[in-house]
Amino acid sequence: MQYAHQLEFKVRDYECDIQGVVNNGVYQNYLEHARHEFLQSHGINFAEITAAGIHLVVIRAELDYKKSLASNDLFVVRSLLRRVSRVRFEFQQDVFRLPDETLMLAARITGTSLNQQGRPFLPEMLAQLFSDEY
Amino acid sequence: MQYAHQLEFKVRDYECDIQGVVNNGVYQNYLEHARHEFLQSHGINFAEITAAGIHLVVIRAELDYKKSLASNDLFVVRSLLRRVSRVRFEFQQDVFRLPDETLMLAARITGTSLNQQGRPFLPEMLAQLFSDEY
Amino acid sequence: MQYAHQLEFKVRDYECDIQGVVNNGVYQNYLEHARHEFLQSHGINFAEITAAGIHLVVIRAELDYKKSLASNDLFVVRSLLRRVSRVRFEFQQDVFRLPDETLMLAARITGTSLNQQGRPFLPEMLAQLFSDEY
Amino acid sequence: MQYAHQLEFKVRDYECDIQGVVNNGVYQNYLEHARHEFLQSHGINFAEITAAGIHLVVIRAELDYKKSLASNDLFVVRSLLRRVSRVRFEFQQDVFRLPDETLMLAARITGTSLNQQGRPFLPEMLAQLFSDEY
Repeated sequence: MQYAHQLEFKVRDYECDIQGVVNNGVYQNYLEHARHEFLQSHGINFAEITAAGIHLVVIRAELDYKKSLASNDLFVVRSLLRRVSRVRFEFQQDVFRLPDETLMLAARITGTSLNQQGRPFLPEMLAQLFSDEY
Repeated sequence: MQYAHQLEFKVRDYECDIQGVVNNGVYQNYLEHARHEFLQSHGINFAEITAAGIHLVVIRAELDYKKSLASNDLFVVRSLLRRVSRVRFEFQQDVFRLPDETLMLAARITGTSLNQQGRPFLPEMLAQLFSDEY
Repeated sequence: MQYAHQLEFKVRDYECDIQGVVNNGVYQNYLEHARHEFLQSHGINFAEITAAGIHLVVIRAELDYKKSLASNDLFVVRSLLRRVSRVRFEFQQDVFRLPDETLMLAARITGTSLNQQGRPFLPEMLAQLFSDEY
Repeated sequence: MQYAHQLEFKVRDYECDIQGVVNNGVYQNYLEHARHEFLQSHGINFAEITAAGIHLVVIRAELDYKKSLASNDLFVVRSLLRRVSRVRFEFQQDVFRLPDETLMLAARITGTSLNQQGRPFLPEMLAQLFSDEY
């Protein structure tokens, strides 16, 4: 697997719940932050494009939970972006614990961008991230 | 659709993000709370069974985001539980805005329960929630 | 004590941490939601005034943690608002567990409002909430 | 000011709210994580001592919000720990934006530790962190 981006994290204790492990919902926070850093690494700042009226939105999330991250764990989110239709793109995002590289979560996040009228479109700056033709 | 449980919520402003709508990850919080209240309504308290060594875990989440909840919105999470294998169960959970009943999110959350050794099993109290035979 | 507003909540399990009780930071979420509902009950919608360029901001928070809320607890946040200077106001907010009315948290949240240039001012709609003269 | 510990962070977009800045409650998350990392740097693991029946609890938090962190900001939490009574200790924690070193938040967090019976006590491992005699 060739990933296009990776970002390291450390579990923070407030992210853990009664079961003593990272709460299910928190993984979506990790994935979102990794996506935004990925975009930032290509010169696309999420807050700025939001202020400019371009709304990146998630339309589908699939998350396969393999093992649970726990207090003090280090991990990395590795991401890959591909275009799946004229106006839709998909992030494949996998979470590996460090340093043992155990796969903890495998996710596919499908998104699109909406203009000010709420209509899907793909702005040029995003289109340049994809090699595929549509 | 015949749901087995429903729970009403109101969006809280701290759940909204830069885009002015409820952040994607927050929906998993809503769904978890609705599941735990569903179990509670059948006499199963999540914190108590966790303390007793029964760990209910999510192994897969599929979320289809239809529209975005925003500040001040009222909504309801409607849930349905079915058994999908000997040790796995699935919650179908749909989020509707109130009072207009617009579908905002459709989710399927697959779970299992782990014993103290981390092995999947289905405790009797959970098995009683399912009508299906396996 | 004569409170001006109260709002009931139930603890959600995702708000609890490794210690099995509501995480310290979550109380600020409860207090914020109670303040926004208080304002809403006086016709002031937080999201709308934010969009209109009026930024209500917290400048100081003092929280005395008395006892810990836990899974399944019901509680009420009771609030009182007073003006403490020409452009500052203070919410006194106390959290009581229900139905035993045990005081769990006592807080004072000092705020002000900023205009588009980031200068403190008190918009007329807020000033009308205070009986005091300054 | 001589701080005993410092930890760098980057704002994550899901931590920002409708106003486009980091939500007030999130700062307590940052401060907690910095305290736990401080303890960890002295060989004290929060999850382990919790499992061993030693409950570190916050009994008072004072937070002075100076300026708002926003999307993409880097910042550092600097911490200082002092003993304030036989069984109480206080973290002074200040948040500075990087690289301009602007003070964003100044906090004092008073804590104690509770034994299994909920009685305050100061375990030896913590007492060793303090130079003061009580």
